[in-house]
Amino acid sequence: MYELGVVYRNITRTDSATADALAALGSATVHEAMGRVGLMKPYMRPIHPGTQVSGTAVTVLLHPGDNWMMHVVAEQIRPGDIVVAAISAECSDGYFGDLLATSFQARGARALVIDAGVRDVKTLTEMNFPVWSKCISSKGTIKATLGSVNISVVCAGMLVTPGDVIVADDDGVVCVPRAIAAQTLDAAIKREANEGAKRAKLASGILGLDMYDMRPALEKAGLRYVD
Amino acid sequence: MYELGVVYRNITRTDSATADALAALGSATVHEAMGRVGLMKPYMRPIHPGTQVSGTAVTVLLHPGDNWMMHVVAEQIRPGDIVVAAISAECSDGYFGDLLATSFQARGARALVIDAGVRDVKTLTEMNFPVWSKCISSKGTIKATLGSVNISVVCAGMLVTPGDVIVADDDGVVCVPRAIAAQTLDAAIKREANEGAKRAKLASGILGLDMYDMRPALEKAGLRYVD
Amino acid sequence: MYELGVVYRNITRTDSATADALAALGSATVHEAMGRVGLMKPYMRPIHPGTQVSGTAVTVLLHPGDNWMMHVVAEQIRPGDIVVAAISAECSDGYFGDLLATSFQARGARALVIDAGVRDVKTLTEMNFPVWSKCISSKGTIKATLGSVNISVVCAGMLVTPGDVIVADDDGVVCVPRAIAAQTLDAAIKREANEGAKRAKLASGILGLDMYDMRPALEKAGLRYVD
Amino acid sequence: MYELGVVYRNITRTDSATADALAALGSATVHEAMGRVGLMKPYMRPIHPGTQVSGTAVTVLLHPGDNWMMHVVAEQIRPGDIVVAAISAECSDGYFGDLLATSFQARGARALVIDAGVRDVKTLTEMNFPVWSKCISSKGTIKATLGSVNISVVCAGMLVTPGDVIVADDDGVVCVPRAIAAQTLDAAIKREANEGAKRAKLASGILGLDMYDMRPALEKAGLRYVD
Amino acid sequence: MYELGVVYRNITRTDSATADALAALGSATVHEAMGRVGLMKPYMRPIHPGTQVSGTAVTVLLHPGDNWMMHVVAEQIRPGDIVVAAISAECSDGYFGDLLATSFQARGARALVIDAGVRDVKTLTEMNFPVWSKCISSKGTIKATLGSVNISVVCAGMLVTPGDVIVADDDGVVCVPRAIAAQTLDAAIKREANEGAKRAKLASGILGLDMYDMRPALEKAGLRYVD
Amino acid sequence: MYELGVVYRNITRTDSATADALAALGSATVHEAMGRVGLMKPYMRPIHPGTQVSGTAVTVLLHPGDNWMMHVVAEQIRPGDIVVAAISAECSDGYFGDLLATSFQARGARALVIDAGVRDVKTLTEMNFPVWSKCISSKGTIKATLGSVNISVVCAGMLVTPGDVIVADDDGVVCVPRAIAAQTLDAAIKREANEGAKRAKLASGILGLDMYDMRPALEKAGLRYVD
Repeated sequence: MYELGVVYRNITRTDSATADALAALGSATVHEAMGRVGLMKPYMRPIHPGTQVSGTAVTVLLHPGDNWMMHVVAEQIRPGDIVVAAISAECSDGYFGDLLATSFQARGARALVIDAGVRDVKTLTEMNFPVWSKCISSKGTIKATLGSVNISVVCAGMLVTPGDVIVADDDGVVCVPRAIAAQTLDAAIKREANEGAKRAKLASGILGLDMYDMRPALEKAGLRYVD
Repeated sequence: MYELGVVYRNITRTDSATADALAALGSATVHEAMGRVGLMKPYMRPIHPGTQVSGTAVTVLLHPGDNWMMHVVAEQIRPGDIVVAAISAECSDGYFGDLLATSFQARGARALVIDAGVRDVKTLTEMNFPVWSKCISSKGTIKATLGSVNISVVCAGMLVTPGDVIVADDDGVVCVPRAIAAQTLDAAIKREANEGAKRAKLASGILGLDMYDMRPALEKAGLRYVD
Repeated sequence: MYELGVVYRNITRTDSATADALAALGSATVHEAMGRVGLMKPYMRPIHPGTQVSGTAVTVLLHPGDNWMMHVVAEQIRPGDIVVAAISAECSDGYFGDLLATSFQARGARALVIDAGVRDVKTLTEMNFPVWSKCISSKGTIKATLGSVNISVVCAGMLVTPGDVIVADDDGVVCVPRAIAAQTLDAAIKREANEGAKRAKLASGILGLDMYDMRPALEKAGLRYVD
Repeated sequence: MYELGVVYRNITRTDSATADALAALGSATVHEAMGRVGLMKPYMRPIHPGTQVSGTAVTVLLHPGDNWMMHVVAEQIRPGDIVVAAISAECSDGYFGDLLATSFQARGARALVIDAGVRDVKTLTEMNFPVWSKCISSKGTIKATLGSVNISVVCAGMLVTPGDVIVADDDGVVCVPRAIAAQTLDAAIKREANEGAKRAKLASGILGLDMYDMRPALEKAGLRYVD
Repeated sequence: MYELGVVYRNITRTDSATADALAALGSATVHEAMGRVGLMKPYMRPIHPGTQVSGTAVTVLLHPGDNWMMHVVAEQIRPGDIVVAAISAECSDGYFGDLLATSFQARGARALVIDAGVRDVKTLTEMNFPVWSKCISSKGTIKATLGSVNISVVCAGMLVTPGDVIVADDDGVVCVPRAIAAQTLDAAIKREANEGAKRAKLASGILGLDMYDMRPALEKAGLRYVD
Repeated sequence: MYELGVVYRNITRTDSATADALAALGSATVHEAMGRVGLMKPYMRPIHPGTQVSGTAVTVLLHPGDNWMMHVVAEQIRPGDIVVAAISAECSDGYFGDLLATSFQARGARALVIDAGVRDVKTLTEMNFPVWSKCISSKGTIKATLGSVNISVVCAGMLVTPGDVIVADDDGVVCVPRAIAAQTLDAAIKREANEGAKRAKLASGILGLDMYDMRPALEKAGLRYVD
């Protein structure tokens, strides 16, 4: 349930050092480091591939076909933020285009994550403003109904509280709650640390079966080899 | 994000008088009384039509293909509860059948709301145990991974906190947060109160255009009639 | 493209004898009689099974999340009409419930066909008011934006012009243009005429292969039987 | 890959005692007894609820929009068979209606399972001819292209070989290969045998946690209870 | 409903100056200039990004799995045309590949818009022939059933009449009826005119809230700010 | 139905000359050469465009949310193989990332075809390891349940037997059974042979109507031209 018609101006953001550091680890590693939770639904796709970002969430709740609150949330953006936009019902309209992107970018936003559509994707790509969205659509919206800014929202199936960290790349979008951001960063770094060594072993032809010592467990589970 | 491997035994339920009274108003009226929020996605459907219930939410987070925590949540059910089951990723497996329904019913559960599949729907219907689910599937599940019980979960796009009220009928499933359950009940009752008078007028042939005095606003908006 | 903000009051309806007679033939036979065209997409489903109706189309164009024009179209309904509602973009909201149904029924509407959601389906069923819709949802709508009434609309992928005949049953919804309604009725009746004889033959065990003399064509096409 | 233009007349059916006995166990129990495999995708739904059947598969491969081979397969039906229809590409057309159902029923078919649409569902229900399908559609088909009869086909994601056993009910459709039909029947009967005792225990309020002795494993996995 | 088996050779195309000028404005601006109508469903996507075209529509109605009429429509193409292909029922087959593209390009077609699949997309990209389609599929089609050329069709939910203007880019596909093409062009140009000034203001950090003077309306609607 | 918990080590691969030669012909031509069968469902898409490969299938059956058998199949890969991964129920998790890709590549695998999700797609693209998948997802998997290696599986609706040839490109994925691989190659080469001549004719403006001599058949079918 959502509180409507309210803008929370003071939110507690995850410290920027932690929020910034998560980008390099990527959504898959961060999601694993959290215990395989935190991921938005896989229909959320980048409008152009190859971008990997993290930042602190400012949230906005919109209504179907109405992007009025996009202008309200713009004022609450601080450098390093990522705007997370949820809709109160399913909608594929294009809520966001090059003008709003110009404004968001001027305020210091790093990206938009929206559970609906966007448009002007060619220009957004040229501006290098990253967007993860459910779809792309030229369909415009009206400005008639109040939503809210910086309340907790559900975006693409995931709860996002203002100040949480968003990590997004070609593999998807993860939300890391502020309370566990630091420990998640540590866990993700540890996870990443010995990936290089593993990769070298696997590249040399050593099997995961042996590197991870899986054969006894597979045998115990009853795996049979037939020649 | 979800805390994994934990069962909260003491949750604060909405008082039963309020929780029980909401059933009669139905999901559409309750959703309107809340300001058009609170509704799960419309893919949530009853396995048999004609049931209208309300109750307090106990929640369970499950993993894809694993229903182990269903047995854990059973112990936390009190008479008047509705179990709300969320999955950490999209899954269409059948997590729930007649044996679990027997257990839930024995514990006093009024219904199950699950963002996945169920099975034994013929028997569930004969038992008169109501279920709202994403789908129906014979596919069984394993019991291998810990989830949690009575944490806040996102089910079919809606945040549900243990103790909230769930209202479900043929039109869908609404979650009413505990903090606003009483005021929502009041607002819903008021909304319902003059429906009978309205229905009688409309049945007599009076138009909504006149009953709601819409003609001036339509004219102002520029509506043209062409003969 | 649609002309917005206009209500056409004078439309030319298919004569009622033709419009009424098509119901008994059903959507499948009528669609065949037209040369296998005219069918709305198969996601259009009745909210309760077992109803078979036909009637003349009055149309309404709505916007996502806005049902204002439903009250405007109500005034244009005449006994024997079926309201066909199109939306200017995809939407699953519940545009129509028991109050509007009471009004439509009082005006003489036989059914609603809507490319979106409806609610109060239990009451609609008790009222015996037939609806074919894309989905069911408690989600309410606002009344803010003008659409149009009695313009040509695209509903579930099919062009419907006011005054056309709509035939709907458990198999789907067909639109028969006014200009060919009479000849379609003739063709459908002819098609139906010898179905009884065919059914008796098939019930006696005669194969379609022989009844339709398909064996030579199958042989010519190269069908091989392997023992 | 499919061999086109061929009808295999002699197929080895699972013995009728085994094929017939599987119906009573239902799709969920049979699927469990096979090790949780064999299930068609859950989009396969009965056109009317409450039917539970089993029978030996005769198969037909059709092309999009073309039901010519339906007449060819009719001749290969023997009493106790279930026709399984696969399409060489995705299609939602209505391949099957009351005339074909009359013919199939006259030949002794118990049901149709089709990865596409059917029509005349009201009449099919009155005839008590069970169908599991992907959708319902009035859309007719042509008779122009050869497929095959009694080759192995993939229907709704599951491989079906002629002579296998099909078990279908409200929960879905399972295919039991002929080679393991007898052992599957045994395993399913064993599985079913102690369900009554279990149900009685659960109905008395005993928890699955205790009945299945799950508490030690949950504790070992690290489950914490918080008061 | 569609007239089958007919080719209209003489259609009235929108004048080429107007049709050509719309490309530069893009689908989003044109759709807004029409009052937010005219857009095909957002599942229509370009096979390669970065192309922006406009042209006059020649239309073709095809049947599922049958591309015979593609060869018939080729003859009706004039330089500056865009072929709009509708299917009489849902189909994902690949109706169009490099040979047809060669022919279309030789006739002067600027693009294909098809409510189904295409194939040879790598070659089409190398040929620089733009296509907007529902999907991509290697699945070939037969040549057996008559459709029509240059009748009004419904493509991806939008009515297209031969001679209308099609505007397509990365954001989607818009149809501009011939009768309003000139006024739409004017409105779109006006809309575009002051975008540069707006963008500069927003880039300087001025908020849309102030540039559009939204604060009074938001306050009147009851928006509350919480510190 | 699937045999679980078994690894077949000795499979008969299609000879490499045939398997390798099919790549150049592409999925559309090969699918046509087989008589328009063999194609996986069109939701299977490459993670990066522009790759065209063929190779011999080694297969793996996985369970939802469990990629344990991916390590088992790695050991069975020989240079020139393509791994085909099927899941026993629908799942969108990310089963495969850069570490497994490193291992597969070291073993000589040419590509992965998987009826589920993958992750690390940016790195996979940099590694130039081709993947065709249902979706992309960061969601990780566990290693708990046995599947099988080198049994016949159904992947994206198509039966794949170990040793068959897989042909994949931007248009989709085709499976060519070993028994007909040689004749399919011959047929595909013949089909391809005169494409150049056809393309030149069409590029010169000659219509398919004339090149394929379609006019008599169209006239016979009743096609009318209206001026």
